[in-house]
Amino acid sequence: MAKEKKLVEAITPMEKDFAQWYTDVVKKAELVNYSSVKGCMILRPAGYAIWENIMHQLDERFKATGVENVGMPLFIPESLLQKEKDHVEGFAPEVAWVTHMGGEKLQERLCIRPTSETLFCELYKDIVQSHRDLPKVYNQWCSVVRNEKTTRPFLRTTEFWWQEGHTAHATQEEAQERTIQMLNVYADFCREVLAIPVIKGQKTDKEKFAGAEETYTIEALMHDGKALQAGTSHNFGDGFAKAFGIQYSDKENQLQYVHQTSWGMSTRIIGALIMVHGDDSGLVLPPRIAPTQVMVIPIAQHKAGVLEKAKELQSELAEAGFKVKVDDSDKSPGWKFSEQEMRGIPLRVEIGPKDIEAGQAVLVRRDTREKRIVPLTELVSGVREMLDAMQQDMYDRAKAHLDSHMYEAVTYDEFKDTVANRPGFVKAMWCGDEACELKIKEDTTATSRCMPFEQEKISDVCVCCGHPAKKLVYWGKAY
Amino acid sequence: MAKEKKLVEAITPMEKDFAQWYTDVVKKAELVNYSSVKGCMILRPAGYAIWENIMHQLDERFKATGVENVGMPLFIPESLLQKEKDHVEGFAPEVAWVTHMGGEKLQERLCIRPTSETLFCELYKDIVQSHRDLPKVYNQWCSVVRNEKTTRPFLRTTEFWWQEGHTAHATQEEAQERTIQMLNVYADFCREVLAIPVIKGQKTDKEKFAGAEETYTIEALMHDGKALQAGTSHNFGDGFAKAFGIQYSDKENQLQYVHQTSWGMSTRIIGALIMVHGDDSGLVLPPRIAPTQVMVIPIAQHKAGVLEKAKELQSELAEAGFKVKVDDSDKSPGWKFSEQEMRGIPLRVEIGPKDIEAGQAVLVRRDTREKRIVPLTELVSGVREMLDAMQQDMYDRAKAHLDSHMYEAVTYDEFKDTVANRPGFVKAMWCGDEACELKIKEDTTATSRCMPFEQEKISDVCVCCGHPAKKLVYWGKAY
Repeated sequence: MAKEKKLVEAITPMEKDFAQWYTDVVKKAELVNYSSVKGCMILRPAGYAIWENIMHQLDERFKATGVENVGMPLFIPESLLQKEKDHVEGFAPEVAWVTHMGGEKLQERLCIRPTSETLFCELYKDIVQSHRDLPKVYNQWCSVVRNEKTTRPFLRTTEFWWQEGHTAHATQEEAQERTIQMLNVYADFCREVLAIPVIKGQKTDKEKFAGAEETYTIEALMHDGKALQAGTSHNFGDGFAKAFGIQYSDKENQLQYVHQTSWGMSTRIIGALIMVHGDDSGLVLPPRIAPTQVMVIPIAQHKAGVLEKAKELQSELAEAGFKVKVDDSDKSPGWKFSEQEMRGIPLRVEIGPKDIEAGQAVLVRRDTREKRIVPLTELVSGVREMLDAMQQDMYDRAKAHLDSHMYEAVTYDEFKDTVANRPGFVKAMWCGDEACELKIKEDTTATSRCMPFEQEKISDVCVCCGHPAKKLVYWGKAY
Repeated sequence: MAKEKKLVEAITPMEKDFAQWYTDVVKKAELVNYSSVKGCMILRPAGYAIWENIMHQLDERFKATGVENVGMPLFIPESLLQKEKDHVEGFAPEVAWVTHMGGEKLQERLCIRPTSETLFCELYKDIVQSHRDLPKVYNQWCSVVRNEKTTRPFLRTTEFWWQEGHTAHATQEEAQERTIQMLNVYADFCREVLAIPVIKGQKTDKEKFAGAEETYTIEALMHDGKALQAGTSHNFGDGFAKAFGIQYSDKENQLQYVHQTSWGMSTRIIGALIMVHGDDSGLVLPPRIAPTQVMVIPIAQHKAGVLEKAKELQSELAEAGFKVKVDDSDKSPGWKFSEQEMRGIPLRVEIGPKDIEAGQAVLVRRDTREKRIVPLTELVSGVREMLDAMQQDMYDRAKAHLDSHMYEAVTYDEFKDTVANRPGFVKAMWCGDEACELKIKEDTTATSRCMPFEQEKISDVCVCCGHPAKKLVYWGKAY
């Protein structure tokens, strides 16, 4: 019992210190490890397995829309990075520079890609000639590097893993359609797989991607009421095409510039998974993303037949398509329960001598701790029902949390009071002027999260300056 | 017709210039593209899709042996790289150094990983305490960087993609078992999936990995009679463990050093696929690794019902589990045939008005051009039979090629004559002295490929110096 206590005690309660709770969970669930490389994290098997599942499922959704994967170089020559003015201004300050290779000083510095627009532009310039070559809808899975002084696992690290889609189209309309299409892929994936509801909207000019005409975002709300940008999709118009000279001959044999997009989701989303669903016992993973969905835990496993029965149940569930393991280590059942809970494994199946005698097993849901005793003849359907219900309930709870942390502010006093005292999103009108965004950030530390697609008019004037309002904006403190 | 000629003419015939044939195929099959990043390649969709299939199938085989995937940092601090003496000597000369990040000079240089032994050692030192924590059987899929002055796509590039497995075990026996187990995984994968027969053996001390006690290799023979190292597996003993202080307490509570292995296969294997199976019409992909296995090509597709029928066949074959596409572009059938052949798509299904009338389709194998007319009612079984036969025949032909390019040499004159005039492997006895390896390389450019597991005794003395022989070695010119 001393040991069991230790595992749970090691987690700081959420309400006491949310940031410390997060760090504790990340470490105790063995998702990441630190290394001697400053700002970089190691994804341990439990963490990488979540990322693998995210990759597989997102990749499938991408390919269903015609995406093709490619592998691009890790390096960008300095002169290539500099070709698009806004882009280089945005990224140059935070890149890592390679200056020596093979024992010699390089004639031109190479940066480690912070993102690969410039490399894709160079490729498209080379392989796009005719309207027949369009569209190009490419994506790559890789890691990128952007220097960060203060880092937190998943949320902000110098190196992180992601996918970056880069497309080229004949028309601006088609580029815009792809931009929104991929934003919807992200939003659907979050809702259907990660059980995370998101707000879809457009970033203000101040918050948009370096080099983009428009940036769209999905914003999620964490348990502590802070927002997290969970994925972005950018329409570049023909800005990069002009900077790089990417032209195609149209059906009338006229040269035209292509229109481009890019879109990305990163390991950051695992931070959202943790902070939306976790509790004081550790991680809680939605069944559809959990690397292990069911942990069979034998009770009194030294007794004849118990371990055999546990493995029989494992085989039966594996055959039915569930990802299932047996914890046959020599730890106590209580310790095993704690570990299974810490790791967020959605369902526990307890099986002991008495259960075997009664022809039953005990099923325990990770999120609600709801316990059901099911006859062994109904094990598969019982597991399926509980996992399906858990997936749905997790989404519903996250949605209720989002809805109950959505505020409105008409006056600036209301706004400041809400930001200070009620964590969540604050809806307020905005004049469109960056000066107001800057003032709001300075006064409250809240930033404009997005101009939601679902616009409302809650007042005629900007919450900050009182001038005529142009847009409803969702504001919030963010990770 | 002019166009069709152009596509095929663009390939230099193998017998005329094998190196140029290779370059032509790589480019015309759209596997890679060059970029402004010296020595680095872009994997285009057709190339990356092959790598994806290799990753998926190898990963499945790894996981079946208990491997867990992780994600490690891209960077290695200089001091960490230097911890194991032989290792740093082997790799430091060819690494890329990051000296600046975030606008500042780094206090310590970071190299881009050329391989990640040192990072895994640091991790294992941190997470291995007890015998209960062993074994650790981790792997990562990533790219690594080693400076190369002369590069060729897939075969030798500054950045390449690979997997690197790194394991830690309680005993040397267990480490050795894992080393050989993974070599066998590679060999089985090559034989069963890539249709490439390989020789299994051990590297000489001269050729082994920097820091390894023993290096094992699988060696394949290319069409031009040159060898290619297709995968390696290393036993480190406790050398790294001692350099990094990785110890565990055993069952008697005594501190012991762990024993480690590493093993890797890279995008280089795609070079082998091309050079073992390709022909003067382009790439030839074994059905089990081909991203597209069947291309349906409609004949006279403007005629009523043809395109619909082609798509119907596609659906039917897709439903039966084949990876199948329809080429419904506005190119001529002849051009489409050439493209399908260039890309190495194993099977072509031709369907035109006359075929529809006769209730049949024409199936053409990529490797032999064997043509079969099958009733549409037997399409699925016909396709399956031809693909299965092709997979087997491709292996058999590669095996016959290997067997017929295997020579023996007893005297040094025989040896030199064989290396000079008969491309392939030369079996010859060796005294165990590195001086003879160096002399042979200088005299003939051939290197020791491996000491094969299946040892024979073809003479009592070293082929080079005449001193008593210790081992049979396979020698050859290599990529």
